[in-house]
Amino acid sequence: MKNKTIGIIGGGQLGRMLAMAASRLNFRTIILEPQADCPAAQLANSQIVAGYDDREALQALAESCAVVTYEFENVPVDAARFLERLVPVYPPAQALEVAQDRVTEKQYLNACGIPTADFRSVDSQSDLEAALAAFSGEGVLKTRRMGYDGKGQMVFRTGDSAAGAFDRLGGVPQILESFVPFVIEVSIIAARGRDGRIECYDPAENVHRNGILHTSVVPAHISADLAAKARDAAIRLLSALDYVGVLGIEFFVAADGQLIANEIAPRVHNSGHWTEAACVISQFEQHIRAVGNLPLGSPHRHSDCLMQNLIGDDILALESLALEEDVLIHLYGKTEPRPGRKMGHFTRLTGRI
Amino acid sequence: MKNKTIGIIGGGQLGRMLAMAASRLNFRTIILEPQADCPAAQLANSQIVAGYDDREALQALAESCAVVTYEFENVPVDAARFLERLVPVYPPAQALEVAQDRVTEKQYLNACGIPTADFRSVDSQSDLEAALAAFSGEGVLKTRRMGYDGKGQMVFRTGDSAAGAFDRLGGVPQILESFVPFVIEVSIIAARGRDGRIECYDPAENVHRNGILHTSVVPAHISADLAAKARDAAIRLLSALDYVGVLGIEFFVAADGQLIANEIAPRVHNSGHWTEAACVISQFEQHIRAVGNLPLGSPHRHSDCLMQNLIGDDILALESLALEEDVLIHLYGKTEPRPGRKMGHFTRLTGRI
Repeated sequence: MKNKTIGIIGGGQLGRMLAMAASRLNFRTIILEPQADCPAAQLANSQIVAGYDDREALQALAESCAVVTYEFENVPVDAARFLERLVPVYPPAQALEVAQDRVTEKQYLNACGIPTADFRSVDSQSDLEAALAAFSGEGVLKTRRMGYDGKGQMVFRTGDSAAGAFDRLGGVPQILESFVPFVIEVSIIAARGRDGRIECYDPAENVHRNGILHTSVVPAHISADLAAKARDAAIRLLSALDYVGVLGIEFFVAADGQLIANEIAPRVHNSGHWTEAACVISQFEQHIRAVGNLPLGSPHRHSDCLMQNLIGDDILALESLALEEDVLIHLYGKTEPRPGRKMGHFTRLTGRI
Repeated sequence: MKNKTIGIIGGGQLGRMLAMAASRLNFRTIILEPQADCPAAQLANSQIVAGYDDREALQALAESCAVVTYEFENVPVDAARFLERLVPVYPPAQALEVAQDRVTEKQYLNACGIPTADFRSVDSQSDLEAALAAFSGEGVLKTRRMGYDGKGQMVFRTGDSAAGAFDRLGGVPQILESFVPFVIEVSIIAARGRDGRIECYDPAENVHRNGILHTSVVPAHISADLAAKARDAAIRLLSALDYVGVLGIEFFVAADGQLIANEIAPRVHNSGHWTEAACVISQFEQHIRAVGNLPLGSPHRHSDCLMQNLIGDDILALESLALEEDVLIHLYGKTEPRPGRKMGHFTRLTGRI
């Protein structure tokens, strides 16, 4: 069994969809997640109920698996490094290090020749004030680590007072990012196999609401040239990281037409959920193929589509969605709909190619 | 949980694919199956390891589920009747009774106005000889019950000796079916919801090898008129049975153009596996919607396709299949490839619609 078993750190919906894809290729899955009966474990072969940094649990996971992967980017790097000494871990721990710190991330992207917003490290209130002054009093202050879905952020417009802001964000290391006057947001989902082959899905056009992804539309309304730039960025980044698995990059398309990387996710990504309905090989299967040492599949898309998240009470629309033709519903096995909680998503096929 | 839990009797690949579809709609699943770690249980929320006729186990299943369904047609009718007193069971037990006995099945189909091959009940060697004489010495002798994938059958051509044949097939109740000189075989997969609504997928054209389904191609090479006749047969049968769930009917297309029903399966069916890749709503999701009291989905198909079973060592072709564009591979989590054992299938999209 061990040589056909994939360990997955994290028990959310991304792990759930990975477990589902793994099963179709005869891989078994073990989830490491402190919450019992989590969304992923409901579909996986088994679960180790323990914290992500529990050494005994990590050891047990390594002993049961041919390879370990993860479904969220805040896996402790120490845990990944510990595992790497016992079993192959994909994507590599370095991808976690880069993605977990917004300053490191932007530095790494820039080093790969991928433009980002201007930014300044902020380690104190005076750093913040200096950075704001450099950016004409405007920008987004974020914690360097552990932010997601718009949490841990503060927006400054000209004239806003920054007094006490560094402490209000917890006094932890922060980053001030300059505003990018953007027209639309797009993302690209790409995969790199153990053999170094890279495949990219078509870019999606994304709309966020309250900092949470609301819809992804494919094809994105961008030029072929810009789509090629997004692919090129993904190829540079995956190659630089000697990456194995699926990765998502979110971009702003600036008013001047430039493609500005916003952030990376070293994992399957919400803006790639449409691949389940509009491609033969979903991002989840692509990730399993990559880490499981199968050839990557074609990212070919048979339909245009729109993916929309079902957040909180959105799930009450289930019955009417179920009546729509060409709508694939995918729910995550979460019992309590709370505001802001991703309960599921749907993908509507909007046209043949 | 109970009101969102579906019990599934049977732990094979059909139960596995039902469990997968159920999870996407937030249903939980419990498998009743004597073999531990069976293909279905690997994806279900839990398994009751017990025989299909174990009353205590059936009671426990009923107490944990809102509804019980099944993934094979040889569920003991007594077990289904026992469950029906405790919990809704879909499809209805009557569908099992009809499908489990080849004589009852043909009588029922004929009563619905659906043509079948000529047949005779055979309860003795002399019955067999009389029946063969009536059919010019030709026909297929089958056990009335428990045959599948070509097992429990004996073919007679003119001049073949029937001596001892009744006993060689076990001396159990049998049926002699006249040969249907057929051009092709087709099947239709249809569903009926609790509200009586019926939806039919496009008919598939099937090729069997050694009595086991080898390929299904959609669209089938039949006229629109014949496709309409297949749909009409499904509608008559589902309505007559007050059916809830997915059902498959296999037909011969006779040399004279007639559509002759061969057998029915009161469950999701191998010749409907293509729906997973070429439709938004697969037969598995359709079945879950029907028994779970959600509206039926559209059976609309976005692509032409070919589905092929991976039987025994066919699975060794996995890596080369994985390299093909637009091929969806689906394996069943079975460890030992044995001759004749269905290990998985793949669906190749062959054209857009």
